[in-house]
Amino acid sequence: MSSVDARLAELNIVLPEPVAPVANYAPFVVTGNLVFISGQVSIGPNGLVTGKVGAALTIEQGIEAAQACGVNLIAQLKAACAGDLGRVRRVVKLGGFVNCNPDFVDQPKVVNGASDLMVAVFGDAGRHARAAVGAPALPLDAAVEVDGVFEIA
Amino acid sequence: MSSVDARLAELNIVLPEPVAPVANYAPFVVTGNLVFISGQVSIGPNGLVTGKVGAALTIEQGIEAAQACGVNLIAQLKAACAGDLGRVRRVVKLGGFVNCNPDFVDQPKVVNGASDLMVAVFGDAGRHARAAVGAPALPLDAAVEVDGVFEIA
Amino acid sequence: MSSVDARLAELNIVLPEPVAPVANYAPFVVTGNLVFISGQVSIGPNGLVTGKVGAALTIEQGIEAAQACGVNLIAQLKAACAGDLGRVRRVVKLGGFVNCNPDFVDQPKVVNGASDLMVAVFGDAGRHARAAVGAPALPLDAAVEVDGVFEIA
Repeated sequence: MSSVDARLAELNIVLPEPVAPVANYAPFVVTGNLVFISGQVSIGPNGLVTGKVGAALTIEQGIEAAQACGVNLIAQLKAACAGDLGRVRRVVKLGGFVNCNPDFVDQPKVVNGASDLMVAVFGDAGRHARAAVGAPALPLDAAVEVDGVFEIA
Repeated sequence: MSSVDARLAELNIVLPEPVAPVANYAPFVVTGNLVFISGQVSIGPNGLVTGKVGAALTIEQGIEAAQACGVNLIAQLKAACAGDLGRVRRVVKLGGFVNCNPDFVDQPKVVNGASDLMVAVFGDAGRHARAAVGAPALPLDAAVEVDGVFEIA
Repeated sequence: MSSVDARLAELNIVLPEPVAPVANYAPFVVTGNLVFISGQVSIGPNGLVTGKVGAALTIEQGIEAAQACGVNLIAQLKAACAGDLGRVRRVVKLGGFVNCNPDFVDQPKVVNGASDLMVAVFGDAGRHARAAVGAPALPLDAAVEVDGVFEIA
């Protein structure tokens, strides 16, 4: 078990089985030392978190939704590393899309749910470049979608 | 003629002349083994497909629009490979933006128009990471815009 | 002083102190020869430019906002190069998000504010792949957000 797995256990985070896409795309692609991971939506232990943040959902609920995206990214990343999260060298970039109305301006607070998770799990290697933007609508009305680029050994 | 060109011919896909941007950006940039291709809008044989998917356009029309984006990506990719699509090693990542209203939730179905095309043309090498999100508006009212990252030899 | 710094001076562009994120993410991450820079919002000399382009803001004001994003990207890029912009080999990709209403279709004109700046500053090395899309809302109501990928020596 890598120290990253130990840290996940300390944080009481149980990685889900990484979800296989139902269409003609892949959950991740490895090219050189980089892993590109498909946009992960806010599926948590209780299913998909849906609705517009700042309207149907509070910011706090949005943060939890973004954290769920982050957990799903790490589950895919573990698969990309053939189960060994100790191979992760750096979280390079997260792209966070927040389902919201035109008057919502707190996308950064929401996406922090994913960003804080990466640092909690990977330490300094979890600090990443990111973009956080609003989206008028997301797949299946997901509250948040986050994709990512990672560097692995 | 590469086997990829043969496959395009089997699919009755005629690549358009890759469109040169009218502004200070490039259709693609090659860095190392990666090709970053600019967002391609849904220009098909009959011109630009415009309007919001799920409103002015049906999902089926949206899928065709996404396929047109995919054809345009492959046209640019061929130029990036100096005409030899046999050099393509992997479709790494597609970013799909669907012009839609706030109540539209079928972005994945729409972007499958581009994803399915990649697998039809490149086989297993066409399976890619992707994100599919909604956009409130796209350039020139395009129905879909898709950008991409590819690995070439 | 690199020739790029000289060119910035000719253009009367003063790079701001690169802003450190207030959350658990980084302004940039270097992986191999690539630098991924976080989405930079339209903070100019007079503060954050806010509002929807084509509504609260004219297209011309949107272009200036995108240019401000570009200046902020270059400031982060300089930090990523330990102060030596002569190490920049290529602007690889810009991702431009324009805060707008659903009927706005001139995202490319707006994002040209950042694209033209890159070519003015870096010459041919400034020509990049890009995507330009609309967003219903951006952080702190920023008018424009642009992230980027760059190649450095």
